[in-house]
Amino acid sequence: MEKDNPNVYVVGASWQRLLYGAEDVGLFKEFNDGSMRGFTYANKHNFKEFQADGDGFLSMAECQYIIKHELDNLRAKDEAHVPGYPKMKLYPGKSVIRRMQSKGILVQVFPLHEKEELKRLSFSWFKKIKLSFQPLDDIRHYFGEGMALYFGFLEYFTLALIPMALIGIPYYLFDFEDYDKFTVFAGFNLVWCTVILELWKRLSASLAYGWGTLSRKKAFEEPRPGFHGVLGVNPVTGRAEPLYSNAKRQLRIYLVSVPFVLLCLYLSLYVMMIYFDMEGWALMIHDEEPTFWTGVLIFIPSIIYAVVIEIMNLIYRYAAEFLTGWENHRLESTFQNHLVLKVLVFNFFNCFASLFYIAFVMQDMVLLRQSLATLLITSQILNQIMEAFLPYWLQRRRNKKAHKRMIKTMGDRELPLSEQVKLEADMSTYLGTFDDYLELFLLFGYVSLFSCVYPLAAVLVVLNNVTEVYSDAFKMCKVFKRPFSEPAANIGVWQLAFEAMSVIAVATNCALIGMSPQVKSYFPESETQLILWVVGFEHFLLASKFILTFVIPDVPKDIQIKLSRLEFESLEALKKRKMLEASGIPKTDK
Amino acid sequence: MEKDNPNVYVVGASWQRLLYGAEDVGLFKEFNDGSMRGFTYANKHNFKEFQADGDGFLSMAECQYIIKHELDNLRAKDEAHVPGYPKMKLYPGKSVIRRMQSKGILVQVFPLHEKEELKRLSFSWFKKIKLSFQPLDDIRHYFGEGMALYFGFLEYFTLALIPMALIGIPYYLFDFEDYDKFTVFAGFNLVWCTVILELWKRLSASLAYGWGTLSRKKAFEEPRPGFHGVLGVNPVTGRAEPLYSNAKRQLRIYLVSVPFVLLCLYLSLYVMMIYFDMEGWALMIHDEEPTFWTGVLIFIPSIIYAVVIEIMNLIYRYAAEFLTGWENHRLESTFQNHLVLKVLVFNFFNCFASLFYIAFVMQDMVLLRQSLATLLITSQILNQIMEAFLPYWLQRRRNKKAHKRMIKTMGDRELPLSEQVKLEADMSTYLGTFDDYLELFLLFGYVSLFSCVYPLAAVLVVLNNVTEVYSDAFKMCKVFKRPFSEPAANIGVWQLAFEAMSVIAVATNCALIGMSPQVKSYFPESETQLILWVVGFEHFLLASKFILTFVIPDVPKDIQIKLSRLEFESLEALKKRKMLEASGIPKTDK
Repeated sequence: MEKDNPNVYVVGASWQRLLYGAEDVGLFKEFNDGSMRGFTYANKHNFKEFQADGDGFLSMAECQYIIKHELDNLRAKDEAHVPGYPKMKLYPGKSVIRRMQSKGILVQVFPLHEKEELKRLSFSWFKKIKLSFQPLDDIRHYFGEGMALYFGFLEYFTLALIPMALIGIPYYLFDFEDYDKFTVFAGFNLVWCTVILELWKRLSASLAYGWGTLSRKKAFEEPRPGFHGVLGVNPVTGRAEPLYSNAKRQLRIYLVSVPFVLLCLYLSLYVMMIYFDMEGWALMIHDEEPTFWTGVLIFIPSIIYAVVIEIMNLIYRYAAEFLTGWENHRLESTFQNHLVLKVLVFNFFNCFASLFYIAFVMQDMVLLRQSLATLLITSQILNQIMEAFLPYWLQRRRNKKAHKRMIKTMGDRELPLSEQVKLEADMSTYLGTFDDYLELFLLFGYVSLFSCVYPLAAVLVVLNNVTEVYSDAFKMCKVFKRPFSEPAANIGVWQLAFEAMSVIAVATNCALIGMSPQVKSYFPESETQLILWVVGFEHFLLASKFILTFVIPDVPKDIQIKLSRLEFESLEALKKRKMLEASGIPKTDK
Repeated sequence: MEKDNPNVYVVGASWQRLLYGAEDVGLFKEFNDGSMRGFTYANKHNFKEFQADGDGFLSMAECQYIIKHELDNLRAKDEAHVPGYPKMKLYPGKSVIRRMQSKGILVQVFPLHEKEELKRLSFSWFKKIKLSFQPLDDIRHYFGEGMALYFGFLEYFTLALIPMALIGIPYYLFDFEDYDKFTVFAGFNLVWCTVILELWKRLSASLAYGWGTLSRKKAFEEPRPGFHGVLGVNPVTGRAEPLYSNAKRQLRIYLVSVPFVLLCLYLSLYVMMIYFDMEGWALMIHDEEPTFWTGVLIFIPSIIYAVVIEIMNLIYRYAAEFLTGWENHRLESTFQNHLVLKVLVFNFFNCFASLFYIAFVMQDMVLLRQSLATLLITSQILNQIMEAFLPYWLQRRRNKKAHKRMIKTMGDRELPLSEQVKLEADMSTYLGTFDDYLELFLLFGYVSLFSCVYPLAAVLVVLNNVTEVYSDAFKMCKVFKRPFSEPAANIGVWQLAFEAMSVIAVATNCALIGMSPQVKSYFPESETQLILWVVGFEHFLLASKFILTFVIPDVPKDIQIKLSRLEFESLEALKKRKMLEASGIPKTDK
């Protein structure tokens, strides 16, 4: 199983070097007075938690980020080619590592797990079975801010669902057949999904401030590794760099990607229609001669449909990634935005189209409830299997022999570094939080859109999230290579996606309220009147929602004050320096 | 007519001092390479248009702003009281000028007009009667960026209305009685009001970039002059400063201001009902025995109502200002936002409630057309009178004698400075662009909401705007004291207000389309179907509108590149400086 090119380089740095790096990448750390300040080497002793020579001052994720940053910033100067590879050209000012990666000289770059730290983290995270908050600071210390924010959001979302689940259980138990009662629940839904997203923004700002990523300025973004084009001059940096015309990219997007997405949507619609045919067919058999088995049969189409949806989502996911790569975006961030947009639109349509159809075209609340329950449960089970257990099982099978042999020869002693590297190089690569957020997004959709007709949805999602925490934690620690840490100040484009979903939820819940017999009974004569009232109410709610978004500050007051103080001080410092510089000038004309 | 305290101080500064000030307030000027850079005195010769000793390098508005800034920043150090006024206490670190202003020692502070420049500006602006764009750069040079942006917006808005006016005229001439045809016009309206606002954002960014205000960082905001409270320590600056508890302010807002606004809205509703009674009464008389005079009588209620609306708006404006002042906001910007919000809500309701009532409750398109026309024309005439001619006439009467006497004694010679100061001190004070924007906002409302039923509205607004340009220009140059210039990068909260109006316009136009007989004929059987289609269409349009807002970049590409380049360069410079500073450290551990 040996690779063709077995050279392994383990890169590390001294504490001093790391501290200079920390200043270089602009890390913010806690100052003696409790505020967060940009770290400078000269000023290092004024930072809290800085002891002796700075050992332990930086988190492991920060060290990793600094080393990655420095490696990525090794730029070619006068070298014409990679030493030893005369055909691999190097361009002045371009990152050497990226060039070597894209040419296949460098096979893998990844940070190593730290056995001791990992053991400690695993223990406080998922090995002790007791009710407690997640160790976000420990997660951040080991995996970085992006990952910690994901787990923070997962936990917050779960906690936010608990009131809904608590209301849902009695609803489910006592009013299961009483469709009239869901109006109140829909109203609650409406308020809930607006409020929790606003509060999360504030909470995430607090977390990010404490971790020093809120005030950190983003560095200049380099082109992503896969980007290619004709060599030209970047108008911003003035450096030689491949350029790709924007018009060409737009053409690719509008002439290929958009039609492709539309085609996929059409396909999904087609599959949905097949599902409805199957559903009708099963129902017909059940109606003709109802037995226990035909009772089971009714659920079969929904389950098959749920599995098909998951498979389609998976295939589409790869297609979208390929297509977005082919669109040749210059920056990783725009690449991500286009990918998220593509995947979101399709997944939303694929998962919810049938539910919307049942709710508003067929207006069949019993089928809606049954379909929602089957979709939700099946997709949860599939997800847990696909996400954690399958990779774990695959990896176990692969490593079993190698591992056993090593344990035999080594006994209880620690694994030598070279063996650890080989072991970890074979682990699967974690592809980022994208899929995890996507799963939460769909769950949020099920709950906020339709939970009023199936109040147990919130309960199911809470249960799912609790196991999700454990399986996600498990997969991060045991299944995957340690991912590169990425400083993040918020959950980025996902905040927007969740907010868009909550707007759709307002419209959907209003429509469901309008369709309930309870509300209809207020307008016995005129359906037109009813619709006008519902539409008016919906417009009022949407307007309130937007006003609320404006009125509630995104950053809590105390953190706002700390940020302003920092800004004020830097302004004052600038003024002082200017005054000192200008003190040589004649002052007579003042 | 002499004041009690006739001391007059004329403050000026040398060019060198002004250049230091320009660096101090962080002005951006055009660099040799065509980009905009923060001005520094040391680097002054690398800026374009910097000649000799810098005479003429700064615009007059910039000089004025710098001097105002320096005056405001004269802070008390150890002085305990204003010299000569032992009872007027001074607090260390507080602005002396503001203290003296609020205590009435300083009666007026204002910049003087520059006769020569003003003559040149007036000529190119409104004295030569020919079709041309407004001299925005000259306006900016004399009055500053805030004023120039207002006139830029006024001009842009007028130009944007021209296609609408051109479509409106044939509509008016040929289809006046054919109410079916307004669907197309409403559809055009929908797209128009979204697109022009997006384009204005880009245009305003271009203008602001060229004037150097787009990249300029806002200075730390001082408390507004009227702000009072118990002396405490500002948590941001650490300076002693009056503090006022936020809870108290919120109480004042929600327990006094909000109920007051609601009461005013109720009052406005009451007046509206009286108007409808009068309208019905006039119509009754006309129907009984129609003569020419009863034909005129039909219009009387609308005219009276329009006048009453204007008067109510005016009174409310003062009440809102008083109330917002009483709420005791710390910053001028929050004060302005609260004032704008209060005034907008009331004015919107006051001006448009009757139209909405006629359109959607009475569903009387003939009355709507008549009412809209009367409201629009009457309010335009009133506005022009109130805004320019009345103050001008008052001032003329006041100054006639004084002026004549002076002309007699001086002949053709220039006015001595002391006389000019006295003359200008007696001129009315311009209260900022608030009322001007408000007027445009209401006009925008008339056009975007209801112009489909009265296509001539756009024509009337264009005519009004053309005279408005002249009367506004005239009042700025001849009627008012020269206002302090304020650097502005955009039209601020008004952009938001106009966008909110355009969202309301989408809903209104969709509803009007749904009510047209033309559309109704497509759904002969089911009114419910019709409403559902219209609502669906409206939601689709609103969604597209929001997506468009996201997709169209707010800043044109070329300016975006220039901004990024500046940012990149400053990052690089920072890195270089750090490297130089760090060059003393041992490099062995690299």
